[in-house]
Amino acid sequence: MSNQTHETMLEMFRQSRDGFLSGMMISEKLQVSRTAIWKHIRKLEAAGYEFEASTKLGYRLTFEPDYWNLEHLRHVLANSTEKQRDIHLLEEVASTQNVAKALAEEGAQEGTLVLAEQQLNGRGRMGRNWVSPKGKGIWMSMVLRPSMPIHCAPQLTLLTAVALCQGLRESTSLPIGIKWPNDLLVEGKKISGILLESSAEDERLKYVIAGIGISVNMNAADYGDESLLERATSLRLAAGEPFGRERLIAAFIAQWDHLYELYKSEGFEPIRELWQSLSVSLGKPVRLTTPMESFLGTPLELLPSGALSVKREDGSVIPVFSAEMGEPH
Amino acid sequence: MSNQTHETMLEMFRQSRDGFLSGMMISEKLQVSRTAIWKHIRKLEAAGYEFEASTKLGYRLTFEPDYWNLEHLRHVLANSTEKQRDIHLLEEVASTQNVAKALAEEGAQEGTLVLAEQQLNGRGRMGRNWVSPKGKGIWMSMVLRPSMPIHCAPQLTLLTAVALCQGLRESTSLPIGIKWPNDLLVEGKKISGILLESSAEDERLKYVIAGIGISVNMNAADYGDESLLERATSLRLAAGEPFGRERLIAAFIAQWDHLYELYKSEGFEPIRELWQSLSVSLGKPVRLTTPMESFLGTPLELLPSGALSVKREDGSVIPVFSAEMGEPH
Repeated sequence: MSNQTHETMLEMFRQSRDGFLSGMMISEKLQVSRTAIWKHIRKLEAAGYEFEASTKLGYRLTFEPDYWNLEHLRHVLANSTEKQRDIHLLEEVASTQNVAKALAEEGAQEGTLVLAEQQLNGRGRMGRNWVSPKGKGIWMSMVLRPSMPIHCAPQLTLLTAVALCQGLRESTSLPIGIKWPNDLLVEGKKISGILLESSAEDERLKYVIAGIGISVNMNAADYGDESLLERATSLRLAAGEPFGRERLIAAFIAQWDHLYELYKSEGFEPIRELWQSLSVSLGKPVRLTTPMESFLGTPLELLPSGALSVKREDGSVIPVFSAEMGEPH
Repeated sequence: MSNQTHETMLEMFRQSRDGFLSGMMISEKLQVSRTAIWKHIRKLEAAGYEFEASTKLGYRLTFEPDYWNLEHLRHVLANSTEKQRDIHLLEEVASTQNVAKALAEEGAQEGTLVLAEQQLNGRGRMGRNWVSPKGKGIWMSMVLRPSMPIHCAPQLTLLTAVALCQGLRESTSLPIGIKWPNDLLVEGKKISGILLESSAEDERLKYVIAGIGISVNMNAADYGDESLLERATSLRLAAGEPFGRERLIAAFIAQWDHLYELYKSEGFEPIRELWQSLSVSLGKPVRLTTPMESFLGTPLELLPSGALSVKREDGSVIPVFSAEMGEPH
């Protein structure tokens, strides 16, 4: 009954002329109490819908999440990539990475996608949490089976950052840049994170799980802790309008397929050049922190190995393979 | 009752002057039929014991497996390494690698050892099977948590080969050499295989499982397929005498701890030099097979990256990161 009431309410909002519906009007139409209406609104908000509330005018529906639709997603992807791929759409999951890893262990094909409306325990770099509320973002993992030596894995991380940056720039026109190695920023704030988990036997990759989190349609309230908004934002907050998630995925996949073929045929050089042109991490002093030390330096360029060339304060230039990059103070 | 009978029989063999006991004598002593004796002998053989059978003299016990004893192993290890480590001794397991991987995912400490008397589904390089009969070899996996970039993993594979080669040379005096990247050979036949499985996040290793299989006390019959003996052998077959497994493990661990510290403090260079001095793969033509191609070439040296420098037939010199090495025809 509740779902039926929700659908009826949403339909009433969609058909209202100025968008506003008074609580009294809804309660009369649906023959339920004002308190019941308020509870329904709260439930819809928890499911990703957003309402503007006015004491005079009542409620207005301001945002509807675009829930995954497998057929629709397949259709959108078929328009932008030729590759056939398995797609797993999940309602709620601890982490899409873990699901994709289990599928890879069972032999899942290259390109297999795992998407969830909501992650309860999304993972970022260095074991950090990743906020992934329902219906508001892209929480996705892709299975890769690169027949490559293990030292290619960091290059695949950089390739994924380039593909996502180009796909999102194209779809949103936002000035998105790459912070080394694979965070995407808009106006200095993080809108997307990438985490590549590799499994290797001796010197050869067995499979790689590319995890991608994109804060698409989150509003300020979705971040819970307001202080997060100093460092993070969503495409919707940055652009002032929401975006359809399926088109963003399709744009990323098209870029990824193209760059992956380029990488396999021509090596890392073209990826390296693209990464450098999209990066916001070169030429400015930063603090680099490794498990061993923390030091100041200026990133000069991306090396052919995928390492970052950094000029230290004493003038020496060293390759940095892995570190956390932060503000220089 | 059966175990009691086995113990009594084994004790009779151990105390017999020339080693031989007639079936009749055993059957009288134990008050069981000759057929029952024959069945007990078969069961003991399946458990790793070996008997010589003579129509005139009866049976003689020629080999007793040294089953794992946790307290004893701890004691032997304590004499050769200072590190405290968790040790998991298992009777029978599909693969020690899988057990160690599950322990690593649950947070097992660096150095954690998993040993099995028998592997039912032992794994080698490239998904190959690894023959691992009961009580006759060392089937072991070690959990590592190197705080290192991902490109160090192949160097750890080479380091493990050096540690095992030196440990076994020291313990057996056999002329053991390393076939690139990490097989150990004696007189051209394989006596040990190493498989390092790495798990990484982006450009950083999360954990590495070092799998080590050593054919210690296998006799010709343990190989089943006789043709295997053209390519494989055991320490016992090569030296003409059996070896205590605990001492071999202790010798390996002592070498490994030493080389790991050396690697962490001085980098790959000293490991590279040791590997080269122990290798039997340099300077002779070989066939190298990758997923992409198969070609003839002569390995010249190990490069600082851990790749093999190979001179191709056309005179060009290329780095080979990953390949199967075989005979040049």
